[in-house]
Amino acid sequence: MKKVNAHLHALHKSYLFSEIARKTQEYQAAFPSAQLLRLGIGDVSRPLASAVVRALCAAGEEMGRTETFRGYGPAQGYPFLREAVAASYRKMGAGIDAEDVFVSDGAKGDCASLPELLDFQSVIAVCDPVYPVYADSARMAGHPILFLPCREENGFFPEIPEETPAAVYLCSPNNPTGVAFSHEQLAPWVSWAQKNNVLLIFDSAYRDYVRSKDRVGSLFELPGAKEIGIECCSLSKGAGFTGLRCGWTVVPRENRWGLHDLWLKRQSTKTNGVAYPVQRAAEAALTEGAADCARDVAYYMESASLLRQSLEKAGYTLFGGEDAPYLWLKTPQGQSGWEWFDTLLKEKQIISTPGEGFGTQGAGFIRLSALGAREEIEEAARRLSAR
Amino acid sequence: MKKVNAHLHALHKSYLFSEIARKTQEYQAAFPSAQLLRLGIGDVSRPLASAVVRALCAAGEEMGRTETFRGYGPAQGYPFLREAVAASYRKMGAGIDAEDVFVSDGAKGDCASLPELLDFQSVIAVCDPVYPVYADSARMAGHPILFLPCREENGFFPEIPEETPAAVYLCSPNNPTGVAFSHEQLAPWVSWAQKNNVLLIFDSAYRDYVRSKDRVGSLFELPGAKEIGIECCSLSKGAGFTGLRCGWTVVPRENRWGLHDLWLKRQSTKTNGVAYPVQRAAEAALTEGAADCARDVAYYMESASLLRQSLEKAGYTLFGGEDAPYLWLKTPQGQSGWEWFDTLLKEKQIISTPGEGFGTQGAGFIRLSALGAREEIEEAARRLSAR
Repeated sequence: MKKVNAHLHALHKSYLFSEIARKTQEYQAAFPSAQLLRLGIGDVSRPLASAVVRALCAAGEEMGRTETFRGYGPAQGYPFLREAVAASYRKMGAGIDAEDVFVSDGAKGDCASLPELLDFQSVIAVCDPVYPVYADSARMAGHPILFLPCREENGFFPEIPEETPAAVYLCSPNNPTGVAFSHEQLAPWVSWAQKNNVLLIFDSAYRDYVRSKDRVGSLFELPGAKEIGIECCSLSKGAGFTGLRCGWTVVPRENRWGLHDLWLKRQSTKTNGVAYPVQRAAEAALTEGAADCARDVAYYMESASLLRQSLEKAGYTLFGGEDAPYLWLKTPQGQSGWEWFDTLLKEKQIISTPGEGFGTQGAGFIRLSALGAREEIEEAARRLSAR
Repeated sequence: MKKVNAHLHALHKSYLFSEIARKTQEYQAAFPSAQLLRLGIGDVSRPLASAVVRALCAAGEEMGRTETFRGYGPAQGYPFLREAVAASYRKMGAGIDAEDVFVSDGAKGDCASLPELLDFQSVIAVCDPVYPVYADSARMAGHPILFLPCREENGFFPEIPEETPAAVYLCSPNNPTGVAFSHEQLAPWVSWAQKNNVLLIFDSAYRDYVRSKDRVGSLFELPGAKEIGIECCSLSKGAGFTGLRCGWTVVPRENRWGLHDLWLKRQSTKTNGVAYPVQRAAEAALTEGAADCARDVAYYMESASLLRQSLEKAGYTLFGGEDAPYLWLKTPQGQSGWEWFDTLLKEKQIISTPGEGFGTQGAGFIRLSALGAREEIEEAARRLSAR
């Protein structure tokens, strides 16, 4: 009898960011005094909003008293948080009901688990380049993957494929390229999905970074999307929750394959939800702390803009940085992304993310994150401009 | 092309505890003034220890300041918590290294995800009756299930099967029967697993409830277990974390199928770990708050003892309640568990858990939880004794 899931062995030896961390640690160990600028992993740097901290601690205190202690929470998350999430969609013009919101510990886990709902032989399509979690998780369950090339000449947008997959992951604003779908670009995908019975899994983890008026923040801004779409979102980037872990997935009851009920069954069988104090903190991030969170997002986007302007001035070819905190930078002399990653680490002490880590079409690019401290972004702009 | 994972459709319509919650809500709606005694779901009732709340809030405050803010944590969990977990094993005589500890949001999720490591065609064995998560999750991934009947005449211990499965789940102290393996009872399982290449997945979520000297608290108290065993544990029952969500899984590097590295790959691809403040709270539960947590466990076990004595005196046939907070009670007139569940709800306003919810061999039994408030347990003892 075969013992181990062979799909796991077939995956890359290590997850992209673990590999970058390893290379960074090795360099830092060899040159302990080097002032590394960390523009690699997309981690935030601004502290939590004070309303968020207050809500977390107040809920913690509640849990310390018999009268207000809370044990297991509802499988889908507390109604107070699901209501706050639904309200955030209504503000964007997407009529989401709290009943369709499933609270989770972040978009990563949900994106990784959604393929469990589909037949393991069914084809799942993912953009190339894109956040590696979709393809890696789908592969672990045995799904064949259809890659949708996103090329420079198309502004890194995918084209609707001729083959019909069971599901497509779309990430907008995109990680790593930083580009975001307009209403007009997304509408044909919804029509195609409806006509061809394709599930659209929309990852909107960076929705709060959209600045351009014509770009969407949610799949559900589009009519008809509820029938064929699922959306994963998170407070990691919009409220600095990378270390606090809270997000959600919207699976409308209108889903034509009955995935709302199946996701509920999956979630209630395999998880026990999110810490009550974290759910209270999340509620605060979407309500009284929302203005502070928006201020932090604006800070990151000013950094992105500053970096973008400096690099354009210095003659680099780049994408993104307008509706996302990521810049997608072409290597200047046709090097591979990993080669330029090594050069930037050794010569400029800048940590980037090589484009190859996001797919074969990412070759020859690197991703820079503008989520660090302003001084680091400014210093990186200076070092990169001095060519 | 098949679209939906048919294994999900094949599962029961709803998770056991969702079904009980539904029946309870219906009764409560019909009789709003009924004083229900909730001995059904195994949820704790004592508040968090003050050291735990302090640690949670202090870490929350850290996250509110730029200098001490923390974003993404290490994939396996923070070293401070993994060290505290390893120390808790050393106290029990199990030499676990912090390097082998994977922090998670609880034992449920880990127990549910571990079948992903195995070939989906491979047979997974589970006890019957037992916590339904093991079989339900394994079924979702398509694994055939081998049930190991645990019968009254064997004191509800399983026998080593003739067929050789890829893995066996063992839960000790057992949920729902409350019985715990002795060193002597467990040793043949370890030898058999070594000889026949079987993975043992040991769920020790109730380890802190063991009172009898000859019963094990960890699989790793047994020599040779590291090569063939994985252990899932949690702070839910030992420190009242059902609403705070923190546990761990130990996958020793000695694992003979290389599952340590594969679990690390799975975890780093599919999760982003546990909230930093929750990890600090967990550390406190295992260190400065440990005495308070132990006091709460002692409180629950006094309740279990009290309930056990009253029911024995009243002539019931029962198991458990000595090394676990659960009593496993035979229905008095040969009814099914669900029938007696309904009778107890309607006639005594007591919520129990029907044995059938834990497997076919659970028929004719119910589980009572002693994790509620003392007054509720005493009142339940009175109502059940008045036959």
